[in-house]
Amino acid sequence: MRLQVPGYESLAQGRTLNYSFSGTGVNVTSAVARLGHTGYMISTLPKNPIGDAAMSFIQKLGIVPSYISRNGENLGMYFLENGFGVRPSQVTYCNRQESSFNTATTDNYHFQKIAEEIDVIHFCGITLAMNDQVRSQMKSLAKAVKANGGKVVFDCNYRPSLWGEGGYKKAKSHYEEMLHLSDLVMMNEQDAKYILELKTNKLERKEQLIDLLPIVAQTYQIPVIAGTHRVIDSANFHSLQGFMYKDNSLTFAEPVSFQVLDRIGAGDAYTSGILHGETNGFSPEKTVAFATVAAMLAHTVVGDTPTASENDIFQAMNHASLDLKR
Amino acid sequence: MRLQVPGYESLAQGRTLNYSFSGTGVNVTSAVARLGHTGYMISTLPKNPIGDAAMSFIQKLGIVPSYISRNGENLGMYFLENGFGVRPSQVTYCNRQESSFNTATTDNYHFQKIAEEIDVIHFCGITLAMNDQVRSQMKSLAKAVKANGGKVVFDCNYRPSLWGEGGYKKAKSHYEEMLHLSDLVMMNEQDAKYILELKTNKLERKEQLIDLLPIVAQTYQIPVIAGTHRVIDSANFHSLQGFMYKDNSLTFAEPVSFQVLDRIGAGDAYTSGILHGETNGFSPEKTVAFATVAAMLAHTVVGDTPTASENDIFQAMNHASLDLKR
Amino acid sequence: MRLQVPGYESLAQGRTLNYSFSGTGVNVTSAVARLGHTGYMISTLPKNPIGDAAMSFIQKLGIVPSYISRNGENLGMYFLENGFGVRPSQVTYCNRQESSFNTATTDNYHFQKIAEEIDVIHFCGITLAMNDQVRSQMKSLAKAVKANGGKVVFDCNYRPSLWGEGGYKKAKSHYEEMLHLSDLVMMNEQDAKYILELKTNKLERKEQLIDLLPIVAQTYQIPVIAGTHRVIDSANFHSLQGFMYKDNSLTFAEPVSFQVLDRIGAGDAYTSGILHGETNGFSPEKTVAFATVAAMLAHTVVGDTPTASENDIFQAMNHASLDLKR
Amino acid sequence: MRLQVPGYESLAQGRTLNYSFSGTGVNVTSAVARLGHTGYMISTLPKNPIGDAAMSFIQKLGIVPSYISRNGENLGMYFLENGFGVRPSQVTYCNRQESSFNTATTDNYHFQKIAEEIDVIHFCGITLAMNDQVRSQMKSLAKAVKANGGKVVFDCNYRPSLWGEGGYKKAKSHYEEMLHLSDLVMMNEQDAKYILELKTNKLERKEQLIDLLPIVAQTYQIPVIAGTHRVIDSANFHSLQGFMYKDNSLTFAEPVSFQVLDRIGAGDAYTSGILHGETNGFSPEKTVAFATVAAMLAHTVVGDTPTASENDIFQAMNHASLDLKR
Amino acid sequence: MRLQVPGYESLAQGRTLNYSFSGTGVNVTSAVARLGHTGYMISTLPKNPIGDAAMSFIQKLGIVPSYISRNGENLGMYFLENGFGVRPSQVTYCNRQESSFNTATTDNYHFQKIAEEIDVIHFCGITLAMNDQVRSQMKSLAKAVKANGGKVVFDCNYRPSLWGEGGYKKAKSHYEEMLHLSDLVMMNEQDAKYILELKTNKLERKEQLIDLLPIVAQTYQIPVIAGTHRVIDSANFHSLQGFMYKDNSLTFAEPVSFQVLDRIGAGDAYTSGILHGETNGFSPEKTVAFATVAAMLAHTVVGDTPTASENDIFQAMNHASLDLKR
Amino acid sequence: MRLQVPGYESLAQGRTLNYSFSGTGVNVTSAVARLGHTGYMISTLPKNPIGDAAMSFIQKLGIVPSYISRNGENLGMYFLENGFGVRPSQVTYCNRQESSFNTATTDNYHFQKIAEEIDVIHFCGITLAMNDQVRSQMKSLAKAVKANGGKVVFDCNYRPSLWGEGGYKKAKSHYEEMLHLSDLVMMNEQDAKYILELKTNKLERKEQLIDLLPIVAQTYQIPVIAGTHRVIDSANFHSLQGFMYKDNSLTFAEPVSFQVLDRIGAGDAYTSGILHGETNGFSPEKTVAFATVAAMLAHTVVGDTPTASENDIFQAMNHASLDLKR
Repeated sequence: MRLQVPGYESLAQGRTLNYSFSGTGVNVTSAVARLGHTGYMISTLPKNPIGDAAMSFIQKLGIVPSYISRNGENLGMYFLENGFGVRPSQVTYCNRQESSFNTATTDNYHFQKIAEEIDVIHFCGITLAMNDQVRSQMKSLAKAVKANGGKVVFDCNYRPSLWGEGGYKKAKSHYEEMLHLSDLVMMNEQDAKYILELKTNKLERKEQLIDLLPIVAQTYQIPVIAGTHRVIDSANFHSLQGFMYKDNSLTFAEPVSFQVLDRIGAGDAYTSGILHGETNGFSPEKTVAFATVAAMLAHTVVGDTPTASENDIFQAMNHASLDLKR
Repeated sequence: MRLQVPGYESLAQGRTLNYSFSGTGVNVTSAVARLGHTGYMISTLPKNPIGDAAMSFIQKLGIVPSYISRNGENLGMYFLENGFGVRPSQVTYCNRQESSFNTATTDNYHFQKIAEEIDVIHFCGITLAMNDQVRSQMKSLAKAVKANGGKVVFDCNYRPSLWGEGGYKKAKSHYEEMLHLSDLVMMNEQDAKYILELKTNKLERKEQLIDLLPIVAQTYQIPVIAGTHRVIDSANFHSLQGFMYKDNSLTFAEPVSFQVLDRIGAGDAYTSGILHGETNGFSPEKTVAFATVAAMLAHTVVGDTPTASENDIFQAMNHASLDLKR
Repeated sequence: MRLQVPGYESLAQGRTLNYSFSGTGVNVTSAVARLGHTGYMISTLPKNPIGDAAMSFIQKLGIVPSYISRNGENLGMYFLENGFGVRPSQVTYCNRQESSFNTATTDNYHFQKIAEEIDVIHFCGITLAMNDQVRSQMKSLAKAVKANGGKVVFDCNYRPSLWGEGGYKKAKSHYEEMLHLSDLVMMNEQDAKYILELKTNKLERKEQLIDLLPIVAQTYQIPVIAGTHRVIDSANFHSLQGFMYKDNSLTFAEPVSFQVLDRIGAGDAYTSGILHGETNGFSPEKTVAFATVAAMLAHTVVGDTPTASENDIFQAMNHASLDLKR
Repeated sequence: MRLQVPGYESLAQGRTLNYSFSGTGVNVTSAVARLGHTGYMISTLPKNPIGDAAMSFIQKLGIVPSYISRNGENLGMYFLENGFGVRPSQVTYCNRQESSFNTATTDNYHFQKIAEEIDVIHFCGITLAMNDQVRSQMKSLAKAVKANGGKVVFDCNYRPSLWGEGGYKKAKSHYEEMLHLSDLVMMNEQDAKYILELKTNKLERKEQLIDLLPIVAQTYQIPVIAGTHRVIDSANFHSLQGFMYKDNSLTFAEPVSFQVLDRIGAGDAYTSGILHGETNGFSPEKTVAFATVAAMLAHTVVGDTPTASENDIFQAMNHASLDLKR
Repeated sequence: MRLQVPGYESLAQGRTLNYSFSGTGVNVTSAVARLGHTGYMISTLPKNPIGDAAMSFIQKLGIVPSYISRNGENLGMYFLENGFGVRPSQVTYCNRQESSFNTATTDNYHFQKIAEEIDVIHFCGITLAMNDQVRSQMKSLAKAVKANGGKVVFDCNYRPSLWGEGGYKKAKSHYEEMLHLSDLVMMNEQDAKYILELKTNKLERKEQLIDLLPIVAQTYQIPVIAGTHRVIDSANFHSLQGFMYKDNSLTFAEPVSFQVLDRIGAGDAYTSGILHGETNGFSPEKTVAFATVAAMLAHTVVGDTPTASENDIFQAMNHASLDLKR
Repeated sequence: MRLQVPGYESLAQGRTLNYSFSGTGVNVTSAVARLGHTGYMISTLPKNPIGDAAMSFIQKLGIVPSYISRNGENLGMYFLENGFGVRPSQVTYCNRQESSFNTATTDNYHFQKIAEEIDVIHFCGITLAMNDQVRSQMKSLAKAVKANGGKVVFDCNYRPSLWGEGGYKKAKSHYEEMLHLSDLVMMNEQDAKYILELKTNKLERKEQLIDLLPIVAQTYQIPVIAGTHRVIDSANFHSLQGFMYKDNSLTFAEPVSFQVLDRIGAGDAYTSGILHGETNGFSPEKTVAFATVAAMLAHTVVGDTPTASENDIFQAMNHASLDLKR
């Protein structure tokens, strides 16, 4: 649950909050649904009005709710205060460990049935940071999907604040287990260096990437690895360059520069673009271009959740006019 | 932190929340400050933007913040969905046990210093329901205040949902300990029957009260006991009658009937009225009338926290015109 | 699309509109979905941002969108200005005949497939008033459902302004055709008198009902007929009494009186209650009581679309406390 | 300029204000414009953005702005905090004596031209309370209109807070001067008793009226006197009864009872109804009924300014259904 | 009627709409009224609350409503979703052909009376695209004004989506008829090339303009032709350069660059600036500079309708400080 | 009282106002309170709901209200219309001379008590412009503080519109009197040239400053003088460079450039930064850097009143990442 102070006020100055329901799972599922796929979410929501509201919002985004169970009383929340110019935005998390999802027992889910019914499943490194029970559920489900012929997508999404002191050490084995199970991994050179402890003597980010991705792909037998490099030109103007490693070859997209409205969730738009490209048999060049523009558009949209259709993305790739459409 | 859906929408229908910071402590302290006293609050607020916002709101209400410490990351919250007519309002609590207040250690506070500086201290049965650490802090502080010549006020405020199954049994000894320490207690015949396990063969509420209050006052050596009886005439129209037991005599106020805007916090307004009357040496008749009208006005005000001045209450007691003041 | 001026301002006074998407179809489908059934809607929405928004809202309500096609550019709209006290609310329709639904050709739909997949279908007299093409689609689909063993529900919902001068005459044969196809009909004595031209020498509404419903049921071979009588006690207080004719017996619910927040869509809540009772094998007494309370609760909820769960309705039937739930 | 805290918050609780521009002049002129007459306003507005905003709002209401001059820097303002139930609404005036209107010199206006062009002019006792310069302008203009064959309407509207201590004494001669010039006066028995110092030995309001109005009409040679009696049944429910004295005969309207949304400006609606009736040659019975219902409807409308059309008023007089119009 | 989603949400994300009433006619008339002229609008508005609201808004803008008739039930609408950065704004039209204006018969208007009373009349190419009846009304009125010595202004405003496939061919004769009647035409080289089928071998826009405008002026005997060239530097930054052809000479304004808040209606501000300059006898240099800055300021103002006064425009022409005015 | 039209509308376009309470005194006191000092304000607020609201807001900002008296009925107000791009913001003052503060008599305050209790007092040139009574109160208090060993801060803040024609002449002696009493003065070379009539033959601002500040410091025996130079790069982008003259040495901060959200009150943030640096014994280099960044951050915050903590300022000085904090 995202609770955002409207405009540029702080929580102490404000009086009202806009709320919505998001998270990597919601964002990726909704984004691929919007691109024409059927998207299910596997989660547990509280059995109270907060959970009812979350269900409504998730359905509104076009996500099929049939794998969501209802139990417990809490939902992870974060408060968002918008920054302005040189003053950065501020996220304050609360109520996370107690959430219905983080306390749900495994019999809450029907993993076998799910594994039989779906083609592709997406996991996220944020979930991996939660607790042992959740980690174990995650790995069981990944194995079950794999066993049933489905594909596993894993977004490394390492968050230092969630793993705490000495986090990389704690995280390494869990990440390795997930990488071994994955068909498509979202990551960049920093994950390789810090989580997987790979070494490179290159100084530049791009060169490190060229150095390390083949090793990762080889070591963990991962068919496709993709990610982005972000440059913050100024507070409200960012640049983004997507890349994808596949069949021993690293493809970069043209970098794009743009004004930023809402930065959260843009990485999930990139993931959805890669998923769409891979599913539809796009060439690597087309896939990274498509995913990069999908991520760019997600920065211009209110809320965490990408809303662009395939057509919106193609139009933006073709540098259509910026004047109003009428 | 109160998070209220504006208007009559549910959380699932709405998009924005109005937020404020309240609770029995805030309400009573602010109400007595508004009546001309200096009100301090003793609590712990998180050291993050949520705590900053709470501090701002508490200061706005005229509460002196010098006894508030800042620690931890969570604040108890509740969501409020307004009912309409036959559809009741709905409160959903969250993030309560993890709150900075409920996890604060005793060295967080300077109880001795506080005990020396204040005249009257107010405790609430909701706090008593939290956990052993909080209960122990509450009792230590009550004893310290008493030892320094201050007066102790205790509002029974028994909430079944907080004590859970077999709650009355669990609560009894804690309540008795607080009652023994108290100079002024807010309660009614139901607290006597269910928490203190007193028996009466009367059927009518008022008669039970007449039966039981003297026994409570005698048993626990409580100088003053006060409370209210509420009748819900229809969804938006309530009646309220205050009472006060003092010097072996039970005084009832004239009952008042009124339209309800915001019901939460009205009991705290009543408490503040009793405190004000007792502090200022009002007669029992004047005190219960004052407190009853204070509670009535609190039902007509947005938010949990009473805002009436002494003058507002006297005007309403004198049945001043209902036409607009200009 | 409902465009409502917030508060009590007129369109000329206001500056903003709240919008939502509703209609008898949306309301009934969403209400039964909320009662635990799977609800599909059969309609056509424009292929533009207005249609996208309608899709989002419909999905949010838990309606499965798979039978909705996307074509055309218009959606029927109405503006709603809230009345206050003696000043009535005002509805202004626009853009109705040009709507995607009213201009959709039959090949837009897969009637045969739909007829095979569903158990119960609901039609509404408002749709019957639209135009010949829509009327013909409606009857074809009803026949197809019937042929596949499904049940047909028809709500008479006669709107004088839609049929125009001499409307009852124009409408009669179409209504009769629908009645012959129906298993459950929503109507009252006025529909019998004015549309079906039945005569009664009784003066009182209830007696007319007792007189006429058996004739209608007999004539058109309708297993169940249900409806309500509404009394407007004052601008914001209404009374409602549900009834149901089945197996040659007319059952009345206890009348209920209540304060009104939003009157539109309450009849659809009643229909959903009857449908739920019939589907679940409730006794006629329980069904009419359930449906009447469902309709009552719908008057206390923002928007056209009922939101009560089965549990909410049972609680209200048991006269649960009106005080806030916490 | 009216600055109103939305909802039921106080200025200290709120954050935003709704603003509009009103006053007896605006209200009466706009109301008669809405009833089909051409309404001009004679005033001075500040030559700054506040005055620009006032001009826009006045034009929006259908008032012809050609007699409004622009000078000075201030506009009289009042803050409005809505009451709820037993808590009354609160008006706080500010910036009144410094207003452009109250400091405008006479050469700011073209009284002679105005007097030649208009048929009826309306003055208000609130203006009479302002200062000597304004009073003198008011009387000159009344005389000029009279001299050119126009009719003078005067609403006594005595406001104790504006005249201060011993106000009735100060006011008497000014009121008498205006009464001598008037063709139609809005007043009731209290004005007669307190301002004009007339005596009656009757105790009941209505009897006092019957006693005193003929004397007033006779003394000051006033063809028509009209007014209302208001009873506040409860905070939000008022009753109103209009009356009119003409041709030696006192006519009362049927009293009406109604729920109140916004009480300010309802008296001006009554005045506009009397003006409309007199202008259109309605019978006294029809005129008072029309004016009373106009005043009733003005209580159900947001803002000070009446918005009902002649048709709206006739519909309400005929007790049309309270159900929504669609 | 413009229905705008506030902020940067899409219709599917939003919940409220800001509405206003605009269109080339409203914009130009209001802009010239703001520059000190008396502006009438000739149109038909629906006889319902939507039309009432439109009337109020138009009056608020200072437009004299005496030539507006009230008939029918519909008003052309458009929904506006604001873009952000690389995501363009989106306009969705609806209910256009059914509008009161587009279905009004000629006897709805008093063309002869209007033609006698006004000095200058402005027509727009958007209206010319509507239907034959409207086109015929437009031409009759233009001829009548001309016959009475008034001046005719025509803004080409060709909208491809309104004329459809092969639109230029359909439009040509209608445009030519209007051009022959016009004293002042708003157009640029594209209108000359595409509508009037004029040829040029120049490649650059400015050179095409220099080539073609003299031919147009000569062919259709048009005393003054004016227009702008817009360059979109980035999504929110545009440049504009005005020009005017008069007395065989083409005058360009200094180009201006600026940040864009609301792009719609800026062309109408330019037209109003040219009209004002021509009416007041400004030199061509001053007129194009004035009109260009008027258009620039219109981009910085909320809503379609320009609000700058003559003084605001002169200040901006003099590069007054950008710091706040206090 | 600041009354701001939300968004970019003008007062004539808008409907609501956001209000807050500010002014140099509020801003500086609140800013130093936020930096860890105890801040009192010395003022008079009206004894009505407007004053109540001001008290609440001031307390919310962490200002101790014990030196604020309550008297009179008016508060100085200003309306703020936000500019956009090339369109400047507009401030319209009203109700200033009549304010409780400007009409308060000296016995309203306890200057002697205040002088004994505080360490540093801040005065502002805006107050000096009010009237003779206020000027005399200001000087008495400054002398009393000085006599009790406190330090006097004076911000020149010369506002031409408040002093009117020939203002510099009128102001000179009052400014000189304050300068003689001051330990820290906020000013720049323009104050020296125009108010103090000092001459320099330098043309560049910085060189004039280097020329004149030593003379000012010498003449009036002022230990510390500080101020800023602002450059408006474009409408929304400003640059700022702070400076400080102390111990015969003029120190400049690094200039900073930034996007502007709300420009009002930024100078007060600079003052608070200088005060904080001086109080905490920062080096001049650290003090001007700290104050300049404090001022920069104040431009990025909603409202007049700075909200940055010491930590926020240090983070911004260290060029921390602009990406969101989570």
